[in-house]
Amino acid sequence: MIQTDICIIGAGPVGLFAVFEAGLLKMRCHLVDALPQIGGQLSEIYPQKPIYDIPGFPSINAQELVDNLMKQIEPFKPSFTLGERVETVNRQEDKSFILRTNEGTEIHCKVIVIAAGLGSFEPRKPAIEKLEEFEGKGVAYMVKNPEHFRNKKIVLAGGGDSALDWTIFLSDVAERVTLVHRGETFRGAPDSAEKVFEMAKEGKIDLVLKSNITKIDGNGQLKEVHITSTEGAASVVAADHLIPLFGLSPKLGPIAEWGLQIDKSQIAVDTTDYSTNVEGIYAIGDINTYTGKLKLILCGFHEGAIMMQSAFKHVFPDQRLSFKYTTVNGVNAF
Amino acid sequence: MIQTDICIIGAGPVGLFAVFEAGLLKMRCHLVDALPQIGGQLSEIYPQKPIYDIPGFPSINAQELVDNLMKQIEPFKPSFTLGERVETVNRQEDKSFILRTNEGTEIHCKVIVIAAGLGSFEPRKPAIEKLEEFEGKGVAYMVKNPEHFRNKKIVLAGGGDSALDWTIFLSDVAERVTLVHRGETFRGAPDSAEKVFEMAKEGKIDLVLKSNITKIDGNGQLKEVHITSTEGAASVVAADHLIPLFGLSPKLGPIAEWGLQIDKSQIAVDTTDYSTNVEGIYAIGDINTYTGKLKLILCGFHEGAIMMQSAFKHVFPDQRLSFKYTTVNGVNAF
Ligand SMILES: Cc1cc2nc3c(=O)[nH]c(=O)nc-3n(C[C@H](O)[C@H](O)[C@H](O)COP(=O)(O)OP(=O)(O)OC[C@H]3O[C@@H](n4cnc5c(N)ncnc54)[C@H](O)[C@@H]3O)c2cc1C
Ligand SMILES: Cc1cc2nc3c(=O)[nH]c(=O)nc-3n(C[C@H](O)[C@H](O)[C@H](O)COP(=O)(O)OP(=O)(O)OC[C@H]3O[C@@H](n4cnc5c(N)ncnc54)[C@H](O)[C@@H]3O)c2cc1C
Repeated sequence: MIQTDICIIGAGPVGLFAVFEAGLLKMRCHLVDALPQIGGQLSEIYPQKPIYDIPGFPSINAQELVDNLMKQIEPFKPSFTLGERVETVNRQEDKSFILRTNEGTEIHCKVIVIAAGLGSFEPRKPAIEKLEEFEGKGVAYMVKNPEHFRNKKIVLAGGGDSALDWTIFLSDVAERVTLVHRGETFRGAPDSAEKVFEMAKEGKIDLVLKSNITKIDGNGQLKEVHITSTEGAASVVAADHLIPLFGLSPKLGPIAEWGLQIDKSQIAVDTTDYSTNVEGIYAIGDINTYTGKLKLILCGFHEGAIMMQSAFKHVFPDQRLSFKYTTVNGVNAF
Repeated sequence: MIQTDICIIGAGPVGLFAVFEAGLLKMRCHLVDALPQIGGQLSEIYPQKPIYDIPGFPSINAQELVDNLMKQIEPFKPSFTLGERVETVNRQEDKSFILRTNEGTEIHCKVIVIAAGLGSFEPRKPAIEKLEEFEGKGVAYMVKNPEHFRNKKIVLAGGGDSALDWTIFLSDVAERVTLVHRGETFRGAPDSAEKVFEMAKEGKIDLVLKSNITKIDGNGQLKEVHITSTEGAASVVAADHLIPLFGLSPKLGPIAEWGLQIDKSQIAVDTTDYSTNVEGIYAIGDINTYTGKLKLILCGFHEGAIMMQSAFKHVFPDQRLSFKYTTVNGVNAF
């Protein structure tokens, strides 16, 4: 079981910066994110877009902001569980909490900070017969570790950037990559699409256009993928893995079950310290709501700073908090 | 009379960033600061110190942050009145305001944002006979425009960085510079002190150590400065200008007289929109207070963003506010 002072659910920009504010008060953080990478919406939805309203940056790319935040919190050595969703929260007798993810990871902490943005990003699942039966048995909706696919037969499905990028990347790793796409052209970046067409021409991958996967099968473990073209032709491809990549959509998910006061899919908080109705649980960033709330990154930063002052009393009930400027002490003095 | 949508009192980091948030909503800003330069505490007190808790900057020098903020707000073309203190605020019949500075500048606006930090920085005045009689008639406490002193006889007093820096700078501009200092050594930067000692040795300036200015005189306009050494020796120096530089200390000053609810020298605000008890007047940054307030730069940034949404209804009472991400529209689209 992972032991920490504060467990932060969500490693988006707001969860990341909260580690810094916790660190100044000598509180240690563990972060959990359902996505395989950190950065929340910034890394998942618009990594290369410039943001103009982060104070002090006339312009900064979303991914660059995430990278900077990681560097900023480095002195406080946060730990991470990525690619797992927090499912349950259980209050202990001593008022501490145990969180459990969908993969069974357990985290024991004194304070929970929900920085879960729009909720956890859940894959959009195509209508394929027996799809759910083979989840974890050959079917995966994201690539957490490409090595997992080394020398395997992989079928990818989708027409966006993820499908194109992973097709290109995995063609060097897997035994064979087949990309199945409903259309004839791709929605993803033109040069990625061009590369994929070229690789198909050279025989490096199999590209199956104007087709859908209709059914999968196997024997406890995925073995074959059934493809039907829009003209009705059917074929079967041998496969160890199927990775449908039809985008992610955020869902509040299990958070709705934790006894928190929810207002239109957001968590209601007290703006004095961004605490929820459950003692010891706070909510910051896009996931919370209050009168006048703006879903802006800079607002989540502020909320994290204020919130940690209040969390301090749960982590160090016998200590008095003293407030110091970073300029006076530097980061390593904390 | 200067016409603007929003008059911001205080050009510290918080006042500066507020221009950006106003600009996104197409509201124009004019800023007034009692200091001759922008940047508030950052530029006045610790320009070269690194700050570690600005989100996205693992470390940034205070002055660099101010420079970045200026660059960030450039697209919105704010205007400035520097070196003047706002003294009075008068509500007009149409609910707009007219502000007046100590030098008579008038600003007409629909919304006032007080981002006045610890208050306006006021010079510490030494005990010199007739000092106040000659204010504006030869006596000045800051150098707004060095050209004002060209070919004049200047006496400076003080032992810190300002006294040293201006002695060095004005020695090239003025007819003659005399620096009077109570001690034998300087508190300011060692290399500046060394330079001043050298210039004195070379006869470029007059350095009068272990001495105090006790009295000044003139005929409606400053003519002479009386100096007494700590050993009791008295002398008189001819002078067109006396510039005592004994540091600045912030004072709430005139703001206390505007009918605002003041709580321990800070302005009480409603955290929903950081409005004060006077409609159309907001307070953000170090100057405001509310339960849980932290005097941090990043909190002032958040307050400015939230506040401008509320100010919008005073500036454009007939328009509906629509919220857009900067990434979607860029800055120039606003
Ligand atoms: C196209 C676009 C442009 C934008 N432009 C701007 C802009 O210019 N300026 C601006 O300020 N904002 C902008 N935003 C909004 C900004 O991205 C959000 O305000 C910001 O991402 C919120 O950060 P967060 O950390 O609160 O949440 P998120 O970034 O949403 O991160 C939350 C994380 O929590 C994880 N999570 C949720 N539930 C669980 C769970 N149960 N278990 C494990 N993990 C979980 C999610 O997987 C996610 O990674 C934009 C948004 C979009 C989509
Ligand atoms: C040594 C030191 C280290 C610090 N370190 C940090 C840190 O690491 N992190 C952090 O977040 N914060 C730090 N701070 C605090 C930070 O500087 C303040 O939070 C910040 O300056 C507040 O910004 P502001 O714009 O609200 O006010 P200020 O920076 O105080 O600016 C207010 C301006 O308003 C002007 N003004 C006031 N009244 C009037 C008037 N009537 N007319 C005209 N002008 C007026 C003043 O002249 C001043 O320039 C530090 C402060 C100090 C002194």
